[in-house]
Amino acid sequence: VAKRLEKFKTTIFTQMSMLAIKHGAINLGQGFPNFDGPEFVKEAAIHAVKDGKNQYARGYGVPDLNAAVAARFEKDTGLVVDPEKEITVTSGCTEAIAATMLGLINPGDEVLLFAPFYDSYEATLSMAGAKIKSITLRPPDFSVPIDELKSVISKNTRAILINTPHNPTGKMFTREELSVIASLCIENDVLVFTDEVYDKLAFEMDHISMASLPGMYERTITLNSLGKTFSLTGWKIGWAIAPPHLTWGVRQAHSFLTFATSTPMQYAAATALRAPDSYYEELKTDYMAKKAILVDGLKAVGFIVYPSSGTYFVMVDHTPFGLENDVAFCEYLIKEVGVVAIPTSVFYLNPEDGKNLVRFTFCKDEETLRSAVDRMKERL
Amino acid sequence: VAKRLEKFKTTIFTQMSMLAIKHGAINLGQGFPNFDGPEFVKEAAIHAVKDGKNQYARGYGVPDLNAAVAARFEKDTGLVVDPEKEITVTSGCTEAIAATMLGLINPGDEVLLFAPFYDSYEATLSMAGAKIKSITLRPPDFSVPIDELKSVISKNTRAILINTPHNPTGKMFTREELSVIASLCIENDVLVFTDEVYDKLAFEMDHISMASLPGMYERTITLNSLGKTFSLTGWKIGWAIAPPHLTWGVRQAHSFLTFATSTPMQYAAATALRAPDSYYEELKTDYMAKKAILVDGLKAVGFIVYPSSGTYFVMVDHTPFGLENDVAFCEYLIKEVGVVAIPTSVFYLNPEDGKNLVRFTFCKDEETLRSAVDRMKERL
Ligand SMILES: CSCCC(=O)C(=O)O
Ligand SMILES: CSCCC(=O)C(=O)O
Repeated sequence: VAKRLEKFKTTIFTQMSMLAIKHGAINLGQGFPNFDGPEFVKEAAIHAVKDGKNQYARGYGVPDLNAAVAARFEKDTGLVVDPEKEITVTSGCTEAIAATMLGLINPGDEVLLFAPFYDSYEATLSMAGAKIKSITLRPPDFSVPIDELKSVISKNTRAILINTPHNPTGKMFTREELSVIASLCIENDVLVFTDEVYDKLAFEMDHISMASLPGMYERTITLNSLGKTFSLTGWKIGWAIAPPHLTWGVRQAHSFLTFATSTPMQYAAATALRAPDSYYEELKTDYMAKKAILVDGLKAVGFIVYPSSGTYFVMVDHTPFGLENDVAFCEYLIKEVGVVAIPTSVFYLNPEDGKNLVRFTFCKDEETLRSAVDRMKERL
Repeated sequence: VAKRLEKFKTTIFTQMSMLAIKHGAINLGQGFPNFDGPEFVKEAAIHAVKDGKNQYARGYGVPDLNAAVAARFEKDTGLVVDPEKEITVTSGCTEAIAATMLGLINPGDEVLLFAPFYDSYEATLSMAGAKIKSITLRPPDFSVPIDELKSVISKNTRAILINTPHNPTGKMFTREELSVIASLCIENDVLVFTDEVYDKLAFEMDHISMASLPGMYERTITLNSLGKTFSLTGWKIGWAIAPPHLTWGVRQAHSFLTFATSTPMQYAAATALRAPDSYYEELKTDYMAKKAILVDGLKAVGFIVYPSSGTYFVMVDHTPFGLENDVAFCEYLIKEVGVVAIPTSVFYLNPEDGKNLVRFTFCKDEETLRSAVDRMKERL
């Protein structure tokens, strides 16, 4: 294996999902629904396949999807973007992240992350040869430590990565936090890469896109995807929205990472993105019920449950159960209790920071969530 | 844009396909069929979507597809591989190429290419920081210049890339050529990355997989895909076959480039790969008829047509028409004749080597091929 990837292991999501299968445990680890996506989107995919939409798409996206992404972005943020010059369709947000890093970051460039962070950020930054610095968001509210941020960010910083709603904590960046980050970025000429794949799963407050803050669009790459919002995580449709000069970098990397994304799925994604508001409202209502089951259950079991404003994840402190760290706790949970959660120490540059914390997902049907809670009540 | 991608332009395939649309020209440029893939494969995709195969696949492929790839590889080469440890499913062969380079090549590693080469080889090697050396295959037969190869390959060589049947020339590597390359690789401890996406489009001789040569499997990564063989270029399903120690590198890069590939399309791909031999025979018969139309037409028009043994491409020398180079010729062909071909100078480290050569594809229905030939007869 090349040096740039030496330090990385099999992704924790894969590890835990495999263990779930091996031990017949209920999988509240990797974030994929155990229910299906909406019929109208599936029908659109079927129609596209039947209709012969089966050859290479245009590299940066089929026109219909680029237009649908632009329309939703305008609706969400008020920003009007050119679907032809400012949107790149990718094979999931994971590819959008990789294309952003490889397309815009040079070896030695300094990039800031907030820890805990989704593991592909660090791995793709390592592929790009970046110098990574991280700022840890700490419980109970995982708020941005502004003074620390101010002391770390500088003219040497090339980019900062944000993720709101935030995986794995469920934290949403407040307008105040975003404003401070924005003014520091403008002052120091820093790019923002913002992963907003959970934007439609914002329960406790309104989602705010970094790109919508004054002066920010021109230095921001907004990353998003279909999977979480439409419960179709396996379709792997993502996109990057950025002004033309940044889009150029993303597209160049994308051209040579995958060239183009599945054509029939892109047509279906365009249909999905034109869903009426009622779709998103129902999704939220459903998820709030699921969240209540899991959160109430985890509290009743005895976890310290940290408030989650968005995403379909909840962070808990497992220390009341006396196991030495997050990995040991998750092993115990799988083997002795029959439930899978995600240990979080892999999401920090300094693994110690995550040793008390474990992530559960509630993107499962209510019966599954109840069974998991019951198992924990009985056996923990 | 990051320095690693500075020298690359919008891919020539995208450029030419866009010009085709703009000028209403017949597109014999980018290699995608203008007919649809087989019904039984489309049905399998529809079935998978309906059946709820819509969440994240296992990162390295759904078990059914890994097994189908292994079975076909065994049938084709006689090699038995472990579907769980030696196969990685990717988002098209383009991603398999990127994952191979980023997963196994370190900055400064020397890698040999045969020119002309598919553009993503150079771009992804540049992402990996490789030192690229190229050996030019020259008309009329594009055979491997053995003495040159011997003088270039050394203990400093980390890997050599081969592509058979070869895009853009249609050349197929002979057993003699492969044997010489193999013994040089073993002698100098060199890896082989072999792109065999056109293996089922072998018309004039049998396809030989480099991995099947004695002693070669352990140092070879075989790259292939669904798109060309099943006329479904837009589905973007590819794979890499390699021994476990090399697969590890490919998988690590793949995990962070895209994580996983479209789940329903993977199930359909597994069905496709279990096609009976008659499917492949019919495909070949159809393509041989198409090839005859194009080749006879190009000769009648006055091109010097080089023999193509495999792929759906034919290389010609355009100099009888008096234009200064391949790019000028292709521009003339689009604007004045209404036909798109691919200029080849971008496929060489030294563009001069390709200035007389232009590539046509015959992956179009017969009527389209006839119309293109007619236009050239009339207007060239
Ligand atoms: C691509 S793996 C799973 C990603 C995800 O949504 C998670 O954090 O579980
Ligand atoms: C991925 S772009 C087109 C690739 C191809 O098959 C070609 O060489 O035309």
